Amino acid sequence: MVDIATRVWTHKWKIDPIVRSLIDTDFYKLLMCQSVFRNRPDTQVQFSLINRTTSVPLADLIDEGELREQLDHVRSLSLSRGESTWLRGNTFYGKRQMFRPDFMEWFENLRLPAYHLERIGDQYELTFEGTWPEVMLWEIPALSILMELRGRALLHSMKKFEIQVLYARAMTKLWEKIEVLQKVDNLRIADFGTRRRHSHLWQDWAVQAMCEGLGEKFVGTSNCLIAKRHDLEAIGTNAHELPMVYAALAEDDAELAQAPYQVLADWHEEHDGNLRIILPDTYGTEGFLAKAPDWLAGWTGIRIDSGDPAGAAEIAIKWWKDRGEDPSQKLVIFSDGLDVEKIAELQAQFQDRVRVSFGWGTLLTNDFRGLTPQDQLAPFSLVCKAVAANGRPTVKLSDNPNKAMGPADQVERYKRVFGVGVQERSEVLV
Amino acid sequence: MVDIATRVWTHKWKIDPIVRSLIDTDFYKLLMCQSVFRNRPDTQVQFSLINRTTSVPLADLIDEGELREQLDHVRSLSLSRGESTWLRGNTFYGKRQMFRPDFMEWFENLRLPAYHLERIGDQYELTFEGTWPEVMLWEIPALSILMELRGRALLHSMKKFEIQVLYARAMTKLWEKIEVLQKVDNLRIADFGTRRRHSHLWQDWAVQAMCEGLGEKFVGTSNCLIAKRHDLEAIGTNAHELPMVYAALAEDDAELAQAPYQVLADWHEEHDGNLRIILPDTYGTEGFLAKAPDWLAGWTGIRIDSGDPAGAAEIAIKWWKDRGEDPSQKLVIFSDGLDVEKIAELQAQFQDRVRVSFGWGTLLTNDFRGLTPQDQLAPFSLVCKAVAANGRPTVKLSDNPNKAMGPADQVERYKRVFGVGVQERSEVLV
Repeated sequence: MVDIATRVWTHKWKIDPIVRSLIDTDFYKLLMCQSVFRNRPDTQVQFSLINRTTSVPLADLIDEGELREQLDHVRSLSLSRGESTWLRGNTFYGKRQMFRPDFMEWFENLRLPAYHLERIGDQYELTFEGTWPEVMLWEIPALSILMELRGRALLHSMKKFEIQVLYARAMTKLWEKIEVLQKVDNLRIADFGTRRRHSHLWQDWAVQAMCEGLGEKFVGTSNCLIAKRHDLEAIGTNAHELPMVYAALAEDDAELAQAPYQVLADWHEEHDGNLRIILPDTYGTEGFLAKAPDWLAGWTGIRIDSGDPAGAAEIAIKWWKDRGEDPSQKLVIFSDGLDVEKIAELQAQFQDRVRVSFGWGTLLTNDFRGLTPQDQLAPFSLVCKAVAANGRPTVKLSDNPNKAMGPADQVERYKRVFGVGVQERSEVLV
Repeated sequence: MVDIATRVWTHKWKIDPIVRSLIDTDFYKLLMCQSVFRNRPDTQVQFSLINRTTSVPLADLIDEGELREQLDHVRSLSLSRGESTWLRGNTFYGKRQMFRPDFMEWFENLRLPAYHLERIGDQYELTFEGTWPEVMLWEIPALSILMELRGRALLHSMKKFEIQVLYARAMTKLWEKIEVLQKVDNLRIADFGTRRRHSHLWQDWAVQAMCEGLGEKFVGTSNCLIAKRHDLEAIGTNAHELPMVYAALAEDDAELAQAPYQVLADWHEEHDGNLRIILPDTYGTEGFLAKAPDWLAGWTGIRIDSGDPAGAAEIAIKWWKDRGEDPSQKLVIFSDGLDVEKIAELQAQFQDRVRVSFGWGTLLTNDFRGLTPQDQLAPFSLVCKAVAANGRPTVKLSDNPNKAMGPADQVERYKRVFGVGVQERSEVLV
């Protein structure tokens, strides 16, 4: 039997919306948003889309009208009652009422602010301006939309069975990775792939496949909507935008040097347990740890998001030892450019020394490499970053200079203030 | 929206029927049935299921109750009005009213006769007895049911995503074959895979994938129901059961020697054009052609279904030349144990010398080899053959002694009568 109503309804849609919910976003965005809403609500920021893979000509591939329709659709979204109930009533990281009533009330009334879109050559300039708590929520939907529209552009010219076989191949590829991970003892891994996923439906499939294939080894997803739908743990802590904006707001070099610690001091007041995870690489991991206050060594763990992951883990282990902490009680979360071989290798290398966990991103939710003739579905490096705060440019140094950003003079100033010397470059795949 | 009615209806089913239509069968069965209905309608025959792959313990894998339910379901089927209309009104091989009114009237009132099922060790003995036109129609449903139940037995213990990935792998595997065939110039290929298909739905998928992937290179399917559903050509001519039963009915050696030609003389009266295809191997191709009457050399082509296909094609080409025929006008249909490499090879070898066509069977509709851990879904060699006619055993010699059947003394007699010497054995995969 054909469900006539469904069919008619489907054909009534003006567009096939890519982002259909304000919680189709990373959990850490909401945690950070609450923190910003509390501590720096009036900061004026600018976020900007940056395509690091300039060989992908987004403006040639994606129709501007379609892109505007998708972005406009996101602006029409507001939190549904069920989503609000889930955020207010659910337990996150073992804690009830993670989101405070004043934040929830604000969020329930939120619509995302305007965007600015312009074609520059074969790329789009896409920027968002306004108060920090509002603008920051554009990051994930903007990335998801660009990624998925780029995929659709290719899929549009494919025939029915060709498309089905493409997904069959992608499923097979992902399942073979899951089969590798099944053999990794003591694995704890979460989905961190929302921002650069192939599509929402594909991420949803990937998460469900991880659930079935890995059982308890799969500890949750960063995507709130998918976590809600499948009753999974929502996973995530905080990201570079906090130290980047705090740093940009610093009035002098002394305040700048303290900015990354101020972020974590604010965080310390709100969160405990597994949410106390240091992200040390914004202005160089070594300097950050060396100058860190002692109370930070008491935090639960560290997230390693750039540079050589094993090297960074060794630095953290040594730092904990130097500060009189027991590394075997500490959590190390690897989240940069992971695929299964690297995951298995890092797990084997560190599982007897620290508690290990993985946030698996793009190569979980968007590994379509090698599945189309000219590899036009391979993921690429797209980010959406805070580029200015209260009129001042932001800076990121990272442990990998290929991930650095900011005006050259400010980069030099930050390097001096944070004591960052020569850094090793490594390729940014995604 | 959930279609509530569909869901409730689905859950009301007592079983999930494997064969749901009397035309979910090979087209040549119906052509042969009409011929038998006209020429030998009262012949009493016994058909029997033979599992040549004794390492597959069918009675251990398949529940007898489930098997009976499926067989009983087939006995409940009758030709629907639409099916009857299609058979009466459609054009087959360019001819209208291929099926005569008296045959159609008989077929419209047909229910399949009783079966006899017994467990013998780890195998089932499944036999059908009655008049030839009725009993012969059991062959394809019986094979399809056993094949699909054996697959279901394994699928039953698999989890949801595991099953989805299994089919994803099977789709990928088949599509890669189609991609190979896309590069074979002048290819003409049909689906002959009903009898040993993985399942009805899978055969339907395979046929549609061939349509999209190969376009005009894909000339049709032997499955009437699938041909009807997708408006494709129904393909097929005749099979070994005709000479086997005619031979068993022969009163003496002289009549036996003539039996295979009598089959084709009866066929000659009814059919012309591309339906005049010789199947020469029942009692040895060389002897059959050497002693064939001249009018047979005027037939359109030959189907090569056992032995070395290139060798058999060479024999046919030489035979046509000897009889003053132009081989380049003749059709050679390869249909034995084909896979894409062999297809490409035979096409290259013969396309400039004869008209080449392929009937691709088991490795089109059931290539699940290598897709499960112990390969429990690999196809195996199951046949359902006429074993007796009017109380006399049937005999098949074939060009491959591994495909021979019949009592030893009768096999010796047939070898003598048909002048068959030493034959080369080749493995029967499917």
